[in-house]
Amino acid sequence: MGSTERIKNVAARVAKWHDAGHQIVVVPSAMSGETNRLIGLAKEIMAQPDPRELDMIASTGEQVSVGLLAMALLAIGKDAVSYTGWQAGIRTDSSFTKARIQSIDDTRVRGDLANGKIVIITGFQGMDDDGNISTLGRGGSDTSAVAIAAALKADECLIYTDVDGVYTTDPRVVDEARRLSKITFEEMLELASLGSKVLQTRSVEFAGNYQVPTRVLSSLTDPLMPLADEAKSGTLISFEEESNMEQAVISGIAFNRDEAKITVLGVPDKPGVAFHILGPIADANIEVDMIIQNQSVDGKTDFTFTVPRGDYVRAMTVLEGNKEQLGATKVLGDAKVSKVSAVGVGMRSHVGVASQMFRTLSEEGINIQMISTSEIKISVLIDEKYMELAVRALHKAFNLEQG
Amino acid sequence: MGSTERIKNVAARVAKWHDAGHQIVVVPSAMSGETNRLIGLAKEIMAQPDPRELDMIASTGEQVSVGLLAMALLAIGKDAVSYTGWQAGIRTDSSFTKARIQSIDDTRVRGDLANGKIVIITGFQGMDDDGNISTLGRGGSDTSAVAIAAALKADECLIYTDVDGVYTTDPRVVDEARRLSKITFEEMLELASLGSKVLQTRSVEFAGNYQVPTRVLSSLTDPLMPLADEAKSGTLISFEEESNMEQAVISGIAFNRDEAKITVLGVPDKPGVAFHILGPIADANIEVDMIIQNQSVDGKTDFTFTVPRGDYVRAMTVLEGNKEQLGATKVLGDAKVSKVSAVGVGMRSHVGVASQMFRTLSEEGINIQMISTSEIKISVLIDEKYMELAVRALHKAFNLEQG
Repeated sequence: MGSTERIKNVAARVAKWHDAGHQIVVVPSAMSGETNRLIGLAKEIMAQPDPRELDMIASTGEQVSVGLLAMALLAIGKDAVSYTGWQAGIRTDSSFTKARIQSIDDTRVRGDLANGKIVIITGFQGMDDDGNISTLGRGGSDTSAVAIAAALKADECLIYTDVDGVYTTDPRVVDEARRLSKITFEEMLELASLGSKVLQTRSVEFAGNYQVPTRVLSSLTDPLMPLADEAKSGTLISFEEESNMEQAVISGIAFNRDEAKITVLGVPDKPGVAFHILGPIADANIEVDMIIQNQSVDGKTDFTFTVPRGDYVRAMTVLEGNKEQLGATKVLGDAKVSKVSAVGVGMRSHVGVASQMFRTLSEEGINIQMISTSEIKISVLIDEKYMELAVRALHKAFNLEQG
Repeated sequence: MGSTERIKNVAARVAKWHDAGHQIVVVPSAMSGETNRLIGLAKEIMAQPDPRELDMIASTGEQVSVGLLAMALLAIGKDAVSYTGWQAGIRTDSSFTKARIQSIDDTRVRGDLANGKIVIITGFQGMDDDGNISTLGRGGSDTSAVAIAAALKADECLIYTDVDGVYTTDPRVVDEARRLSKITFEEMLELASLGSKVLQTRSVEFAGNYQVPTRVLSSLTDPLMPLADEAKSGTLISFEEESNMEQAVISGIAFNRDEAKITVLGVPDKPGVAFHILGPIADANIEVDMIIQNQSVDGKTDFTFTVPRGDYVRAMTVLEGNKEQLGATKVLGDAKVSKVSAVGVGMRSHVGVASQMFRTLSEEGINIQMISTSEIKISVLIDEKYMELAVRALHKAFNLEQG
């Protein structure tokens, strides 16, 4: 939520749903810029802010939002009440700044809903068993919304974002990108983890685990647009695989520009080599994505993996320090690579998706550096300069513009 | 607390006390301007903000402060932990925006103190029996500090303010005004209620009810000044009447410039007249201070009272609307009056204070419009243009510059 004007718009939208007879729980985000402002203050005091105290501070952004939204509803004659995470019975573990929800006691909220109230709950936060305030980390408001929807067995969880749904690929890269009216939870999870940041990965996992039908839709539309239209807008993350899924073998092309590739050459091929290479990387809190270990030759092997580009320099430093201990002959790196992925549940029952993908890239003269696959996804690592070209070619090859 | 720089200064000061072997609980205020910013946001949404939701929002200012101060202490190697009002066991009634503390469960705080931790608690707020966040209203941080000191049976409650203590009168009016090193709780209460806003009246009441020795001292001194000096600075509000109180018949001259006087002429002198005049004023939420009812003549009487000048126009409107019902012949008003008071516990055992006061004013040619007295205070209402003159003359007449 941006300005107080925007909060009034949210109230108008919420009131519209309530007028149509729905029981509503709203989980607003902090006002825009507020969480960063609070974290900035903390960092002025402590370069690495104490996690518990940081949560004490960062949680206030949402607390202000819920109070303001409740007021905006009261001001237009709606009965509304706001709660913090702890007031709404949201229990988390004690991993401050990245806590996980453990349970929700929804007694109070259910009582309010039964009495016709609109309930506003702070996202992004809860309370641990010792009564400390905890936050869920980035994107935590979405996760809270899904978790509360799951606890209340809501008909649908609506996530209002600054995009109007999930697209077959990024419309900024491919003009013909098309909004999907439906997507399965598994596809959404792959897209989220591949960098299509419509929803945070954890909120999608939550939606999946608790089978919460979740709709991603735009907060930028007219709050007074007809409800029938709004209820069908955006993209529904559903839990039934479509019977006509043959039509859509691939649902979308995802990509992540900011990858980096590291290769450790000539390490002795013995048990534990992967652990000895990646252990120190994990200890440095760097996420590793794709991993390849070559067939060994003369008892030596090459080991390649990717890391987020922002962590590339740190990862290289860690490895250079470990090189001798690993017995490696050389460490090579390339910080100008990107990942392109085709995602779709239809892939399961269709052979030939991989070969179609590889042929398309080959016809465009794009060399594939690494490949990884899952049941519903094929990812390739390529030179970053070909990324847009690859995405456009694959979008066309899989007929995604036609739906 | 102003900037993060200032928070670091507070941390240095607190650490100094802790280093000297004291167990410390700190109740910081919100960062300067923050509470007003939050209330401003609320008013953009709702001209008369809903009190419960306003407390939800306004309480976050202190929550940010406690987290930042805890971090500032952790950053200099002190073990510190912050709590909100509800986490620290502060229970209040449900009068949102002006709640009153009902009990404090200090188990958790005592445990932390025993473990050597510095405990930081949000002022200005608590939780009601239904788990709603409540705030204590303006000056609530001082009240919280005193209440927590009472619950913990602290040796002393130190209130750091932007003045360095309580003066015999306002130094901006009388150059010779002198800082009092000690004052009794009752004197402080009169001074607070008379407009010497060093401490909020409620916090002084609390200190009195629970006999908490409370020291008012300056937050603007060097945080690293020697502890022995700091511990003796400011003004101690004590609970023993001085044995040498004969020396100080009067402790100070207080004044309140912004008074207004209203006279209702010719009302029938029958039971209930005061109630019928002042009831509607109270209903309009206007505080009445001095009240005089004249001896009646021919069954008619005049009734005079004072209100804060900011409420004068409203009060006159209320009375004009009631005039006929009251049977009053006329309503007169004067918004240019001020109140000057002499305060001192020594007054109890000294006759002649009143006559000394009246003589002094008379010698200066100042007409007294109303008089009210308590055991330790004499107040007079005078034309505002003589206020400074009266204060200076009385300060001199009671030898206050000499201590």
